[in-house]
Amino acid sequence: MRRTAMANITANRPDFINVLERIKQVVGPKGWTNDLESMLPYMTDWRGICRAEALMVVRPKTTEEIAKLVTLCAEGCISIIPQGGNTSLCGGSIPLNSGEEIIVSLARMNKVLNVDPDNYTITVEAGCILKDLQNAASKANRYFPLSLAAEGSAMIGGNLSTNAGGTNVLRYGNARDLVLGLEVVLADGRIWNGLRGLRKDNTGYDLKHLFLGSEGTLGIITAAVLKIFPKPTEVCSAFCAVPNVDAAVTLLGIARAESGDAVETFELMPRLMIDLVMKHIADCKDPLKERYDFYVLIELVSSASVDSGISERLESILSNAFESGLVIDAAIAQNETQRQAFWKLRENASESQRIEGASIKNDISVPVSRIAEFYDTAWIKLAEIEPNIRLVAFGHIGDGNLHYNLQISEHGDKNAFLARYEEFSRVVNEIVVEMGGSISAEHGIGRFKRKELAYYKDKVSMDLMGSIKNSMDPAGILNPGKVV
Amino acid sequence: MRRTAMANITANRPDFINVLERIKQVVGPKGWTNDLESMLPYMTDWRGICRAEALMVVRPKTTEEIAKLVTLCAEGCISIIPQGGNTSLCGGSIPLNSGEEIIVSLARMNKVLNVDPDNYTITVEAGCILKDLQNAASKANRYFPLSLAAEGSAMIGGNLSTNAGGTNVLRYGNARDLVLGLEVVLADGRIWNGLRGLRKDNTGYDLKHLFLGSEGTLGIITAAVLKIFPKPTEVCSAFCAVPNVDAAVTLLGIARAESGDAVETFELMPRLMIDLVMKHIADCKDPLKERYDFYVLIELVSSASVDSGISERLESILSNAFESGLVIDAAIAQNETQRQAFWKLRENASESQRIEGASIKNDISVPVSRIAEFYDTAWIKLAEIEPNIRLVAFGHIGDGNLHYNLQISEHGDKNAFLARYEEFSRVVNEIVVEMGGSISAEHGIGRFKRKELAYYKDKVSMDLMGSIKNSMDPAGILNPGKVV
Repeated sequence: MRRTAMANITANRPDFINVLERIKQVVGPKGWTNDLESMLPYMTDWRGICRAEALMVVRPKTTEEIAKLVTLCAEGCISIIPQGGNTSLCGGSIPLNSGEEIIVSLARMNKVLNVDPDNYTITVEAGCILKDLQNAASKANRYFPLSLAAEGSAMIGGNLSTNAGGTNVLRYGNARDLVLGLEVVLADGRIWNGLRGLRKDNTGYDLKHLFLGSEGTLGIITAAVLKIFPKPTEVCSAFCAVPNVDAAVTLLGIARAESGDAVETFELMPRLMIDLVMKHIADCKDPLKERYDFYVLIELVSSASVDSGISERLESILSNAFESGLVIDAAIAQNETQRQAFWKLRENASESQRIEGASIKNDISVPVSRIAEFYDTAWIKLAEIEPNIRLVAFGHIGDGNLHYNLQISEHGDKNAFLARYEEFSRVVNEIVVEMGGSISAEHGIGRFKRKELAYYKDKVSMDLMGSIKNSMDPAGILNPGKVV
Repeated sequence: MRRTAMANITANRPDFINVLERIKQVVGPKGWTNDLESMLPYMTDWRGICRAEALMVVRPKTTEEIAKLVTLCAEGCISIIPQGGNTSLCGGSIPLNSGEEIIVSLARMNKVLNVDPDNYTITVEAGCILKDLQNAASKANRYFPLSLAAEGSAMIGGNLSTNAGGTNVLRYGNARDLVLGLEVVLADGRIWNGLRGLRKDNTGYDLKHLFLGSEGTLGIITAAVLKIFPKPTEVCSAFCAVPNVDAAVTLLGIARAESGDAVETFELMPRLMIDLVMKHIADCKDPLKERYDFYVLIELVSSASVDSGISERLESILSNAFESGLVIDAAIAQNETQRQAFWKLRENASESQRIEGASIKNDISVPVSRIAEFYDTAWIKLAEIEPNIRLVAFGHIGDGNLHYNLQISEHGDKNAFLARYEEFSRVVNEIVVEMGGSISAEHGIGRFKRKELAYYKDKVSMDLMGSIKNSMDPAGILNPGKVV
């Protein structure tokens, strides 16, 4: 049943029409669409779990255009869904189901505005694709460390709005830790200009941290000044088989200490994850001859301009780990091609799960010291209630963060499986909370986890978040139905 | 004229008496004083610039006691001045002049609650002295990097409330970057329990960053979970004479690149600072035979358990720098005693300035790439309006942060000098703002810089801060007259 959103809304909310016409004038003919087919990619989440209609998609070119259109929306009480690369795993950039919202895509604001290698900063528009940003830093002999599987299409504005994590958090922190300054359009259309590249600024409350991770519910991030770092000159990667999760955590501690904290990546991967990637993704190869239950991808990085010795150190760490039984087999990348082959396995984890069929994602964290205990405890309880479930738990154990994903059994019924989402997640989350962990470590809350947030988060936190939202967006027009 | 604050207030505000009596019951006989002499150290700022009376000083032992007394204050509309080690350089922990406030000292809440070496975290009460916290981490073979001159008396709660900087920001970030979790008593007496040691937690707005750096105006920090790091196994220090500020900045860039980002400290010091320290502080020695205009204290640090080679690297960096003229003389510490001797010069900078006489502190930051330009531009303009002023500009240039302090001339009149505070600071701050810098890089706003904040900060930021303050402390009882 094809119809345009505009035609639909004309009947329901005639008062919107005038506002929408004025927004069209602000962004110009190339800056909007209400054609249903063109709008589809903006209205569907990456995993294809939800689809919701919108009045139209606007694609402004400047911060001023956004400020003007937000002002119009504020006057007309039209809600706004800010959207970057739309790679959220929690439906964070998808409208609600009313059809009465507009999607503001940052895709045309994709410029790198400035690279300052001496100040170790890069200034970018929010629609800049993460990969392009990494490349711009690299061209200036610098390094932007935020890295995640979706980096080829994810946009930095979305990464910042969701405080993305990724594979380099251990050494460089989460997305919020990489931000020095922001420019944000507020709910009333005013522009907050915090676009400064300072390492230190104690002039009042730190407003940028409010916008970072608030998923577009307090303002629309339009540009950012980000930290860049000396470019790595040497990267040593090993793909190791470990006997269990406990051994992986112990190995991490040893590797941090012996390498002088040069560990940039430490990713846990179970056998089933490797199997799924090799089944669904072309040109993947198991780096080891035998099959093992668990693997870690470990990388040591140095940015020293002289020989850092990390290659010898990685070998020495692994050789000691063999002797003590922490590692049972390993391959060290001899060149960049081999290294990329290791990463291809890790980075296609989500994609191969998607192709394999339905899955329930639990993006959890616990203190690093309790991660092995968590892994086993949750698995025992899940297996009790559903023996046919498949566990694909992988991720950044250096940060205490596991994607504790539950995959449907090989010939399982999708709807029956997904219907038990709450039941399964409840089992996982109860253990997470009891261990002082987080039910959403890096993916955020979005649409999908809002109910869980309200259930698990303490009342004082919910009250504080509510009062901040009320004071900054009293009409509730910014990304409604997300987070709070 | 000696009188007790209580006697004074009995006449003015009889309604307070009942509340104060109930607060005394909450904290017990050892938990309060209203004896003027006992209260004096709490009512006077470290530099002796301001003194203000208070109703009484309470010294609670637990978070629950604080929660109860804040509830009573909220009911009775009595304002609260939270206080740690009272080492603020901006009068951040000193009452206003009404005499109608109570000081809540965290000094008796000084315990280290937990050290978790595997999770790389330490949990402490807010009154824990920074030095004690460093020592507790060290005992567990870990490292807490926050370090500043006042660390022997400053308390971590104050460090966090002001987002303290210090000498290791270049490598480890500011105080806020070291925090994983907080416990905070809110303005209505409720306890916000965010005391978790997670590297990743994206469940809603990041509330902890609101309290960090808000100088006790949004809540009273009572405990924190902090990041700790692998303990350094090797520290190499050099005290170098450089021809000018520009050379220092260039040297920093080279040192970061050649050392593989192992630079932990990079402090600029002018000759006059060294002279003042040697004049006023016992047992200080100039590490170099000749006199030079500028020095940097540089430290490379490694936590590798095997030889890291940083000692050779420091020598190679300096030897290249000699050849290119970036360094004109240098001493490398041969042992810990010599290293401590270098640090004694740097850490007594503020103390020796205090003994020497009146000074006007400008704790500014600009992008690192513009710091040399700033140094000269501001100095030329200042010398134009007052040729007898003495410049003691030192600090953390790796963070773009200078303590651009103006010292009274040798036989100058203190009152006449301090009367020109605004005039001098205006000259400095105008240049800071024009260069996109901060008028308070790490010291905060407190009482002293509030007027400047209102003058220099943009209206949108001030509005946002005001609305956050209103939503979290509507009666304005938390540290009134500070920041907002």
